[in-house]
Amino acid sequence: MRKVGVAILGLGVVGGGTYKVLTEHREFYKSTQKVDISVECVLEPRKERLLELGIDENIICSSIAEVCSNPDVEIVVEVMGGVEPAKEYVLAALRNGKSVVTSNKELYCKYGYELEETAKKHNCGIFYEATCVGGVPVIRTLLDNLQGNEISSLMGIINGTTNYILTKMTSDGMSYDDALAEAQALGYAEKNPEADVEGFDAVYKLSILSSLAFHTKIPYEKIYREGIKDVCPIDIQYGRQLGYVMKLLAIAKNTSSGVEVRVHPTFISGSHPLAAVGDNFNAVYITGDSIGDTMLYGLGAGEFPTASAVVGDIIYCATHDNYNYSPFSNTQVAGAVRISDNFRSSYYIRVEAEDRSGVLSKIASAFSRQSISVARVVQDDVSKGSVPMILVTHPTNENSVRKAVEEINESSLGSRVVSIIRVAG
Amino acid sequence: MRKVGVAILGLGVVGGGTYKVLTEHREFYKSTQKVDISVECVLEPRKERLLELGIDENIICSSIAEVCSNPDVEIVVEVMGGVEPAKEYVLAALRNGKSVVTSNKELYCKYGYELEETAKKHNCGIFYEATCVGGVPVIRTLLDNLQGNEISSLMGIINGTTNYILTKMTSDGMSYDDALAEAQALGYAEKNPEADVEGFDAVYKLSILSSLAFHTKIPYEKIYREGIKDVCPIDIQYGRQLGYVMKLLAIAKNTSSGVEVRVHPTFISGSHPLAAVGDNFNAVYITGDSIGDTMLYGLGAGEFPTASAVVGDIIYCATHDNYNYSPFSNTQVAGAVRISDNFRSSYYIRVEAEDRSGVLSKIASAFSRQSISVARVVQDDVSKGSVPMILVTHPTNENSVRKAVEEINESSLGSRVVSIIRVAG
Repeated sequence: MRKVGVAILGLGVVGGGTYKVLTEHREFYKSTQKVDISVECVLEPRKERLLELGIDENIICSSIAEVCSNPDVEIVVEVMGGVEPAKEYVLAALRNGKSVVTSNKELYCKYGYELEETAKKHNCGIFYEATCVGGVPVIRTLLDNLQGNEISSLMGIINGTTNYILTKMTSDGMSYDDALAEAQALGYAEKNPEADVEGFDAVYKLSILSSLAFHTKIPYEKIYREGIKDVCPIDIQYGRQLGYVMKLLAIAKNTSSGVEVRVHPTFISGSHPLAAVGDNFNAVYITGDSIGDTMLYGLGAGEFPTASAVVGDIIYCATHDNYNYSPFSNTQVAGAVRISDNFRSSYYIRVEAEDRSGVLSKIASAFSRQSISVARVVQDDVSKGSVPMILVTHPTNENSVRKAVEEINESSLGSRVVSIIRVAG
Repeated sequence: MRKVGVAILGLGVVGGGTYKVLTEHREFYKSTQKVDISVECVLEPRKERLLELGIDENIICSSIAEVCSNPDVEIVVEVMGGVEPAKEYVLAALRNGKSVVTSNKELYCKYGYELEETAKKHNCGIFYEATCVGGVPVIRTLLDNLQGNEISSLMGIINGTTNYILTKMTSDGMSYDDALAEAQALGYAEKNPEADVEGFDAVYKLSILSSLAFHTKIPYEKIYREGIKDVCPIDIQYGRQLGYVMKLLAIAKNTSSGVEVRVHPTFISGSHPLAAVGDNFNAVYITGDSIGDTMLYGLGAGEFPTASAVVGDIIYCATHDNYNYSPFSNTQVAGAVRISDNFRSSYYIRVEAEDRSGVLSKIASAFSRQSISVARVVQDDVSKGSVPMILVTHPTNENSVRKAVEEINESSLGSRVVSIIRVAG
């Protein structure tokens, strides 16, 4: 039976999960996959973590050089996160002829091209299913199942923390702060939640996924980003009345002027399959010219779902003699467009309007002057002095919306636009 | 650039779709996949089909021998369906060193082992993503993504025809016959719908999927099968009131006594992700020990979704130098169990009860004598002489249910059990 030695760099949540899954399933993989996978070394400075996981002293390494010079190590698993020293370690492993499996989205999003070129040069494999959406099998699906399709769009709920928070704000009417606190208590959000709630995590993942889907390098800096911190529970509730559900969507669309890439709070129809993806679940919804619509759903983060992706890659690497390299290797930076001058969408707009005659007509004419066609208007509670008015536009130019909003806010009517939310169509 | 010649055996719906996708995307694949895939021959006796698709005379073959002796053909695509002559043709191609891509579920379910052994012997690849659930990427996901998991259950809506019919019966209250007629008019059901509505198609697919998920050969004959012909619209409506949705589910579960495999009309909770899979869409819901719950969703049949899977396999084969063989190759027929003496489930039971005193107590004691615990009782309209009574049991033994039903039907109270539907838990 083929024997394959593995080194694990970093024993954080994912590294620990990977160690447990590999050791607990060793006999299972021998019988089902005909391969004997053993953890030959680990690189982890925190002594308490080594103790916690019951790591055998003989497999503890103290440097990447030691890992690279170990002839029993065939596959190096990088689950440290961050760019340095992860990048240096991965390059060292590849240069020493060891294949790499990584869960590091920031590293892969920023240096995927360089890593794959190095892997090719040294005839090694590099695998990164775990970089995006944990256990949801989206990367291999894009590479090996949908590669015959011209993909027109990819939309995803690709951050579990924000989806949990928005689900709680939607179903329990919680405030953002309360929902965040609950997510933190459950371990779904970090103490410092910035990377998740500001959308950076989703941006890294979307950079990788859209690069694969559209066969062109989409640098993360080109992705428009808006987090969920400013989402008002009241807009979520008004949206529901209109049949919408609020999600932090990552969207990549093929347009005539390039690939449009963006991450922002979005209203989506309640009947869309993504609308039903709740709690900390993730899903990616892909539309291709042959396959039509397809969706992949599962847990996008956490110890074992992410380890599932890491271990899937380890077994794949251990049971295949040669590797394929993804389009990261051979594409140029191309025309990724963020939300630009000619970006179009439907919009949900909430106006705090003073309830006096002429207000609706003033608001309506501000939109009309920008050739914005309004699809729906809801004016809820006219008994108070200042009433919310909700308008949903037909697809229109974002610039025109901004101009109309400016006009309304500057008018003497005391009306003020307080929320603008894009509606996915 | 690598050039790969393809032969297509059969130009039916899937074969025609494959031909169109390959020819229309030839330049796209050259630029994105760095491979030039050309259709070098087709084998199709129907002249009108050749004309319809505008096939060049030079690529029309008249026999499998001609296909096999063509040195430009590297990959043979078998999309004829049925066992013979498909099996003979596939074996001939493999013996001549040509890799095979097939969409033929009946062939693969019955002879997958033999085909893979032949492929191995001749150092060829054999690929069959298109045999199950069309464009939904479930086979490669099981083989290359979830292979690190011990899978506990796989549940799927894996037949589009029956899902369309049940969706119409649910949402529009249609009768089975009307819904079938509509499905036929839309091309979702065959003129002779037996293979779909009786569950044979789902059984073939479940045999393949469960064999992969559980690393053991699950012969299709061992799969319990019940079609949807006898489903009453009224039970669908009562079920909805109880929060259930009716689906033809294909279920494979790992139990202490083997893998339990079955296809039958099933009530599933309205909040389960599979409940929202409507119309002719398909989905497979898989639970593994690391990944947790994951679901793959898409169109399971049709010209282009199935061609997407076929072409995905063609490109995979054309861009990888070696192949992996799935557990079909190396496993024994093992303890697949159908619904057996100790099968347990919750049950929805509808009784037509005469509305006279003592009936409920008689029915209740029949269940009680079999130690069946009833979770819910609904008695709807007591104004008529004969009233429907719905009982939902806690998980219990199917044999006990059958005994209780017998007792009720044989009692002198004029009560009769008219429907028994398993509830997925």
